[in-house]
Amino acid sequence: MKGCSKRAAFLFIPFTLFALLCVTAVKFLLLKSETSKNMKLPELADIRKAHERIKPFIHRTPVLTSEQLNKIFGCELFFKCENFQKVGAFKFRGATNAVLSLTDEEKRSGVVTHSSGNHAAALALAARMNSVKAYIVMPETAPAVKKNAVAGYGADITYCKPTLQAREESCRKIMDKENAILIHPYDNFNVICGQGTAALELLEQRYDLDIVIAPVGGGGLMSGTSIAVKGLNIKIRVFGAEPQNANDAYISFTTGNLTPSVNPLTVADGLLTSLSELTFSIIGKNVDKIFTTREETIIECMLLVWERMKIIIEPSSATVLAIIKENPDVFRGKKAGLIISGGNVDFRKLCSKLSS
Amino acid sequence: MKGCSKRAAFLFIPFTLFALLCVTAVKFLLLKSETSKNMKLPELADIRKAHERIKPFIHRTPVLTSEQLNKIFGCELFFKCENFQKVGAFKFRGATNAVLSLTDEEKRSGVVTHSSGNHAAALALAARMNSVKAYIVMPETAPAVKKNAVAGYGADITYCKPTLQAREESCRKIMDKENAILIHPYDNFNVICGQGTAALELLEQRYDLDIVIAPVGGGGLMSGTSIAVKGLNIKIRVFGAEPQNANDAYISFTTGNLTPSVNPLTVADGLLTSLSELTFSIIGKNVDKIFTTREETIIECMLLVWERMKIIIEPSSATVLAIIKENPDVFRGKKAGLIISGGNVDFRKLCSKLSS
Repeated sequence: MKGCSKRAAFLFIPFTLFALLCVTAVKFLLLKSETSKNMKLPELADIRKAHERIKPFIHRTPVLTSEQLNKIFGCELFFKCENFQKVGAFKFRGATNAVLSLTDEEKRSGVVTHSSGNHAAALALAARMNSVKAYIVMPETAPAVKKNAVAGYGADITYCKPTLQAREESCRKIMDKENAILIHPYDNFNVICGQGTAALELLEQRYDLDIVIAPVGGGGLMSGTSIAVKGLNIKIRVFGAEPQNANDAYISFTTGNLTPSVNPLTVADGLLTSLSELTFSIIGKNVDKIFTTREETIIECMLLVWERMKIIIEPSSATVLAIIKENPDVFRGKKAGLIISGGNVDFRKLCSKLSS
Repeated sequence: MKGCSKRAAFLFIPFTLFALLCVTAVKFLLLKSETSKNMKLPELADIRKAHERIKPFIHRTPVLTSEQLNKIFGCELFFKCENFQKVGAFKFRGATNAVLSLTDEEKRSGVVTHSSGNHAAALALAARMNSVKAYIVMPETAPAVKKNAVAGYGADITYCKPTLQAREESCRKIMDKENAILIHPYDNFNVICGQGTAALELLEQRYDLDIVIAPVGGGGLMSGTSIAVKGLNIKIRVFGAEPQNANDAYISFTTGNLTPSVNPLTVADGLLTSLSELTFSIIGKNVDKIFTTREETIIECMLLVWERMKIIIEPSSATVLAIIKENPDVFRGKKAGLIISGGNVDFRKLCSKLSS
């Protein structure tokens, strides 16, 4: 019996391990299929549909050029100027598409988001233009100018402590109480499709580009841009531009593991957020490379555009030019389309940063 | 005899006084006719000719609008954006017209001016584009960025002490030595005609205006603007905008006596110069009113345009909006065309001013 029980034990251990392995594998496959099921990735056709949907509400922003900057950088630059979009940023495209994609019943319930930035203003305006109630959760520390902008668009603002936990909790409460639909700033199929329409227009306006560059924060703009560009012309290279001080997309992209930023700190305040699983999937599939850039180069390139082109771009937008400055060999002689994400700048705050 | 000489003396004194008066009057009339003879004032036809002449060289700048600013100011605003002109200012129009109006012999001799601002860069570029040598006298204290810009356009720069006397002396030496033609920044018929082409385009782009406003410094832009506008439509009111801290045009206009500024000090650094006899004559004839504005309003309106329109305008340009802000009753419900003179801003310098 002793020998027999020993043999049984020998058989039992690998069997148990094998069984455990099988259960884990099945669980993993189930989870993966569940995630995949939930994560239908947008395609060019979805972006085209979004464009048709939002066209009457958005500005078709201009594509500007500058002989002086072409000379400085040794390549041909085409600036798709979303700083001239409504609310001063591309965010209005995604927010409008999300609101217009709601069912009538959902529209009656209203929309909710937590944001202190451009998405809050964009959703508030998109909702108002479509007679939908918007609930915006903002940290009580948000600048007065932003609070006023959102209030000016008629949104119902809830102030909370300036922590992610407090924001999410306030949001959840509103969702429970008002049945409002959450419109996430980037982890949202319709938002991504809306953001992709800027690149769609860029390529309608300039079809002969070699490269398209977009800034990467949460990845909504980068995702939409990459789907639109690769869908229209697989040969165009799509690059992401990210501050070195908030380089989660760079790390996630190069390691293949979704890795959020920890305490990012950059002048490009629109790029503090980290990729979501959805945007990570899209970017991994469609983007050719992500470049990071230094803070000094971001500020230098922002001021260069202000000085030479006489247009206001925000620091987040300047990252796309900053990666060209730091990698001249990659771009020399090329035609590059740059998605200028927005032009919302707090001048007095920026001035004290520049003076210090 | 005593009585007789007394009588003669009584007759002699009034006669002498009368004779003196007559001589003075004749001298005055002769002088006036001489001045008028030298001061052929430009007319609409001259501005039209200038426009035909410079058209291939200049940008036809856009006329921009902003729903938000219309709402804030309670009137319809049409911004003629010379900040997007070559060298970033309307000055390129006048300089180009002056260079193109030279005879072949004069072109061979080259042009000269003294300026540390936009006119220097404008003349340098206009000259280079027409293969004419440009000599620019600049104060040695001029900012490096301006020195580099002028040098970049291939001009021959002479540095001098930062006094008007030193500048004029350096200029005269070059005129004597090189036989170069002086192109004054505003006291020049062809320069004024060139500057007037901005308003000509504005009224081609928007013919239904009630008011046109231009900033007043030396009066070149104001003169050209007023001739163009009144020539095209006498009913359109033409206003000048001037900083309170450099209000020579306001004083000269309201008193009827040409009165230069003494030590003007304003953030609108393009408006430090005083009217000349020529520009004073034109403005007196064609401008309906000159408004002055406070420094704080100039800065506030400049930042407002940056924030809302996402375009860079320089402080001098912001005066046209500042007078609307300070005189709302005059402009309410009106359609006003604003000549945005330029967008050349030294950001780091401005920032230290805003921060202080």
